[in-house]
Formats: sequence, C-alpha cells, structure tokens
Amino acid sequence: MAVGLSGTLTLFPVDGVRLAVAAAGIRKPGRDDLMLMEVCAGASAAAVFTRNAFCAAPVVVARRHLASGAPRLLLVNSGNANAGTGADGLEAALASCTAAADQAGCAPEQVLPYSTGVIGEPLPVYRIAAALPSAWGALQADGWQAAARAIMTTDTLPKGASRRLQLGGREVTITGIAKGAGMIRPDMATMLAFLATDAEVEAALLQDCLARAVNQSFNRITIDGDTSTNDACTLVATGRSGARVNSRGAEFDALCAAVESLCTELAQAIVRDGEGATKFVTVHVEAGASEEECLQVAYTIAHSPLVKTALFASDPNWGRILAAVGRAGLTDLDLDAVTIHLDDVCIVRDGGRAQDYTEARGQAVMEGEEITIRVGLARGPAEATVWTTDFSFDYVRINAEYRT
Amino acid sequence: MAVGLSGTLTLFPVDGVRLAVAAAGIRKPGRDDLMLMEVCAGASAAAVFTRNAFCAAPVVVARRHLASGAPRLLLVNSGNANAGTGADGLEAALASCTAAADQAGCAPEQVLPYSTGVIGEPLPVYRIAAALPSAWGALQADGWQAAARAIMTTDTLPKGASRRLQLGGREVTITGIAKGAGMIRPDMATMLAFLATDAEVEAALLQDCLARAVNQSFNRITIDGDTSTNDACTLVATGRSGARVNSRGAEFDALCAAVESLCTELAQAIVRDGEGATKFVTVHVEAGASEEECLQVAYTIAHSPLVKTALFASDPNWGRILAAVGRAGLTDLDLDAVTIHLDDVCIVRDGGRAQDYTEARGQAVMEGEEITIRVGLARGPAEATVWTTDFSFDYVRINAEYRT
Repeated sequence: MAVGLSGTLTLFPVDGVRLAVAAAGIRKPGRDDLMLMEVCAGASAAAVFTRNAFCAAPVVVARRHLASGAPRLLLVNSGNANAGTGADGLEAALASCTAAADQAGCAPEQVLPYSTGVIGEPLPVYRIAAALPSAWGALQADGWQAAARAIMTTDTLPKGASRRLQLGGREVTITGIAKGAGMIRPDMATMLAFLATDAEVEAALLQDCLARAVNQSFNRITIDGDTSTNDACTLVATGRSGARVNSRGAEFDALCAAVESLCTELAQAIVRDGEGATKFVTVHVEAGASEEECLQVAYTIAHSPLVKTALFASDPNWGRILAAVGRAGLTDLDLDAVTIHLDDVCIVRDGGRAQDYTEARGQAVMEGEEITIRVGLARGPAEATVWTTDFSFDYVRINAEYRT
Repeated sequence: MAVGLSGTLTLFPVDGVRLAVAAAGIRKPGRDDLMLMEVCAGASAAAVFTRNAFCAAPVVVARRHLASGAPRLLLVNSGNANAGTGADGLEAALASCTAAADQAGCAPEQVLPYSTGVIGEPLPVYRIAAALPSAWGALQADGWQAAARAIMTTDTLPKGASRRLQLGGREVTITGIAKGAGMIRPDMATMLAFLATDAEVEAALLQDCLARAVNQSFNRITIDGDTSTNDACTLVATGRSGARVNSRGAEFDALCAAVESLCTELAQAIVRDGEGATKFVTVHVEAGASEEECLQVAYTIAHSPLVKTALFASDPNWGRILAAVGRAGLTDLDLDAVTIHLDDVCIVRDGGRAQDYTEARGQAVMEGEEITIRVGLARGPAEATVWTTDFSFDYVRINAEYRT
C-alpha cells in the first residue's frame, strides 16, 4: 500500500558504525526484532525524544544515559514498546542495557535502549539477553538494510536514506533509517529513527543540527494525530571522515541542510507507508500571520477524519476542507479572502466555491496518489507544510487487529 | 447500527406549535426533505449556533432574523447545507425565507432558515418554494415524528424526546428533535435540534436556559471531531400552558433541568446513531484542576483514532488510552497518580498496568456495547464527561461514499 515507495534502499556505510540484527522472539518467533548499533569510541551523539507525558521506560533511560556522555551501543527492539510499564519497565530497560554492556565490555550508561511495539506488556529481557551474543558476533558496517527491517512494526517496507557531501575538502556520509507506521504525530521526533555521520561534530552543535532538522521533517508529519510514547530520533557523529565541524558557519549549514534533507525523506517515507495509506498528501498553508497558526490550520485539515475519508474516496469534497479551516480556531479570519487549492485547481475563493471550479477538475486531482492541499489565509507572510495520509478501511483493519 | 436506540419515539405535542414535512426533491426525489415548524404569535425564542468560522448561509440569516424578534416559522431542509456558497448562498437562504413568509403571511424576518446536507452545492430554492404550499396545508400539532425523520441525513433512526413537569401548578410540556450523524463535534450546538415548550419564558431567560443545557449536552459529544458549519439548536416557548417563568428561582431551575435532561437524551441519541457506531462510550475525567483540563483530556481520548479502532475491535488496548492522556497537553501531570478504569475495572495505576488487572477482565468490559472510560488526574476537584463512539469500517464506508 505504500505510496510511491519501492522498498529498495541504497544505504552507504558510515565509518565507525557497525550494525547487526537478531531474532529474539520478543513477540513473535522467527523474525528479526532486535537491532544493535555499535558506535566507535570518541563519537558524539544527539537525540530528541517524545513529548508525550507518558514517555516509555526506554525513553527515560536513553535520555539519562545520553546525559552522561556519548553512547557506544544503541539497543533496539520491536514487538514491545516497554511503555506504561511503571517501575518494572524502568528496571527492564536498565537490565537490557546491562546485558548489552556486559557483552560489549562497556558501562551500562554507554548503552541507549529503544523499544517499539505493543504498549503495556512486560519487556522479556531474558529473550533480549539470550539473543545478544549472536547479534554481537554479526556486527558489520553494511548492516543498515537489515537494521531498517528489524525495527519495523506495522510498516510494510523498510525506510532509509543516505546523503554524501563535501565538507572541508573531505567526503562526508550521512545514513539514517526510520520506522512508522501508526500512532504518528511526532512531537520532537518520530517513532524511531537512527542516523549516523562520519563527520566530527561537537555534541552541542550536533544537537542543534538534529533539532533543526527534526523540526522541519519528523515534526511536520501526522498519520492519526496520536503522539507515540516512544518517539526517539538519534544522530551519532563518528568523526572518522576527518571532516571537522566545530563552529557555526557555511560548513555547519551544509551539514544541517543534508541532515534535514535526509530526515525529510525518512519522514515522508513514514507517511507514504502510513497505516492503510493510499494517498500521500501535502498540506501547505501560506499567507498566515505566524507559522504557528499556519501549522494549526494544516494539522486541523490533516487530522480531520472527514477530509481523510474523502481523500481515500478520491472525492473532491472540498466543503470538508473548508469546514476544517473554519474550525481551526483562528480569530478574525476573513472568510472572503481565504483561498483553497487542490494542486493547481482553485476550489474556494470569495467565501465559496471558485467560479471557474468544476467537479471534473477537482476529481482529476483527487484521483492522483500524491495531492497537495494549499490554503491561503491572506493574513501575513508565514507558511507551513505538513504531510499526511488518507483514512482507509485498512487503517481501521490494521488497528482493530493489531494485537490479535 | 444505532447503539441502544429503538427508533420508537413518544413525542407530546406542544400547544402553539404545528409541524409539517414535504418531499421537495432537494437532493434525491421521493423522500421528505423539507420541514416546517409554525410557532404561534407571542412566543419567545432562543438559539445557539456553530462557532465554525465558516458558518453556513442559513446560520448567518437565522442569527440575524432572530435578533429582530421571535420567529413565526422555522424552515428546515436536509440534503443541502447551503454552506461554502458565498453571497449566492445568503441570497438563497433569504429567498427561501421570503417564499415561506409569503405563504404564511408574515415578514421574512419572522422565518428562521436551517439547512443540513452536502456542503458547497447551490441550494435549489425553487424546489423549496414549490413544496411550501403542500407543507403549509399539512401543518399539525402532532407532526413531530415526521419532522424528526425529515431532518435526517446519514442518521439511521429519528431522534426525539419529551418531558413533562409541573410549574406553578400547571403542566408544562417540552418536546425536541435532533439529527446527527457525522461532522459532529458541536461547539455551541449540535448539527440541528429543534425544541419547543408551552411554558411562557421571556427571551433572555430562555436563552440562558438553552445555553446552560446545550453546554452540558450537545457541547459534550463528539463523533469525529469535525465541527459542522451548520450547527444550530433552537428552543421556542409558546406560553400556551399558562405557566409563566419570568425570573430566576426554583421554577426556572426546574425548567432548566428538564431542558438539559431532554438535550442530553437527544445528544446521546446522536452519538448512539453516530456514523458507523457500534459502541456508546462515556469518557469521564475526574479529579482535575479545572473543568477545562478535564475536557481537554476527555476529548483527546474521544478523538484518538487508535482508541476508537480499539473500541471497535473490543480490544482492551489500554496503552492507547494512556498514550492519549499523555499527549493531552497537561503540564506537570503526576503520571504515577493517574488512574484509568474501564467501567469498574482499574487498568492503570502507579504509572503502569494495575497489578490486579487481567486481560480477561478488560475484555469483558470491552465486549459490551456501552463502555465508560474513567480517568482520574489526582490534581483537584473538577470533572467532565463527554460521549463518543468507536471508529468502524462503516464510518469509512459512509464517509467515502457520502456524495456518490
């Protein structure tokens, strides 16, 4: 069902990073559900995490461990989110870090744990511990493809991307992987994304770079408006390329642009593979008084079940878009000045249906797999874009059957 | 599909009010889609309307006409919302009032127009005008049942209720009808509701009575979070019973309580017959710092597609409820103090799954048609309740096929 995704990934290795997967049988036997990412000594790291008040145990532990210094290992499991698990969950997250640290010969604080899957089930740490040796033995520089598969839950395709750029005369690589595919309305980061570069970047700068990128990519997508308890996006910088970025300036901006471009590709891939998605929808709101109000309108449209079911039906039922704009909570909105376009077709102007609009023109746009809804507010210079999907029978089926 | 509704209504006539319906062929031929409600001279009226910035033309006109005095006629059509229709829509709403006024021998300002149905199509005023004579000739005091049917759109059953009470030694009747069944997240009133009483109540008091009732009933339901452009709830008081309520006090309170009780029954009926509904869900949030934050949490749960699909599947996937509480935007929420119950079964306590919770107990609750989700915030004395439905295949089907 993924819209415009082939599932074929070209992922460049990043010097200083090795990855491996293993089948730990966390929820179901026989599929790779454990992923290990080893980071060389001397690397720096940055991360952003969910703002859901009920953040999962691994988020609490990863945040704490990251504060104590750069990680040597990222330990990721799918099949179980270790969320809503209280004190036992924290203990389980710590125990899995200890098991991995024992294997790697590092301190438990140098391990960052990540979990994704069903909320509220106890994490079977013993299964993770049992699978660690085989994962440890399988670490390799070109393990990104398998890693992208192992972190999937309801995703139908793996998601990853690479970028290469020149910094200070040296070639720098950035590679990242991510997973969706439901409970997606990131509020700092997506469900899970892991990025690495071989540039050398001091931790505070790296954090700034990642925060900028995430704010324009993972924080601009929504599938169902439900912010996950486990969102986490992590970027490590190994320094192995010899390219050093130790101050703001042109090179830092170039790195930021490449990271943002990569994050945007991953974020859009999550939307394209959103649960039940049959459309990839760009909602662009422009001429607003502030970016905040543009986002408010964009998310109101992107979350409207009526807009989303109309998109699924390829029905140019623009009245639902108009109703969503109207309920977005903007005061003193000049209705007669608002414009709404489907791709290049103007559907609303002068407070009602555009005079030159025809159902046939709207229908032609709606039948495409990739649709842009563009709203003009006529209130100022600000703009914002979010990406989302339609709402299909399969969304209901996937989420009604998720635990069965 | 309606949950716990039989469709059998017992509606008492209200002295001073007569109703009639007609098949005007507004969208489809052969079904009653026009409703006329005649109100005797000397009555008072109150109304609340949608807060959607894009309010429909009839809402604009009804609000204006009501400001000029009590109405003699309410003119309602289904099949076409006359919303998003700009200046032409306003003209069409006014023209239909003029046609009805000519028929009734009153001023156009004494006619209140209401429309419900597809957004953005021109209102065929000529069809309404052509059907008015037959409706006018059919006015009768016990026309409530037929009226409840004529205002339906995707509703599967008509909705109405009556109350009788003693005021000042006289029997007073209140009767009301309402329609849903999608784009339901009222913000002042539901899609359409028409109430009448034979008490004599001065207009300002009547407005206060209605506003109070609506705030605790129609403003406490949500099906899909989409506030309609056409929401309107109108209450007329004919005074024919001889019971006069002309000041605040015990009798006014009794009247308010009866109106609120009736509005609550109608609001719940809208939810029970929500598009695709298979469950009637009460979300009760208690021990909050303010009613506002309780509503914030309750609506976040009630709007979560993941909670709603779990309800459809009868799956006690309480992690989704917990995640919704966590993303509701409450600052300084003490996670360890939050409790969540499904009916009487405690599912979350001490920051995780309650020790005595079993999947079997959760499953037993979820298999019922009527479910209460109760959240304790442990922050204060405030509470709030909203009513909602699940999210089913039929919701998607109904809204994907709505215009076909």
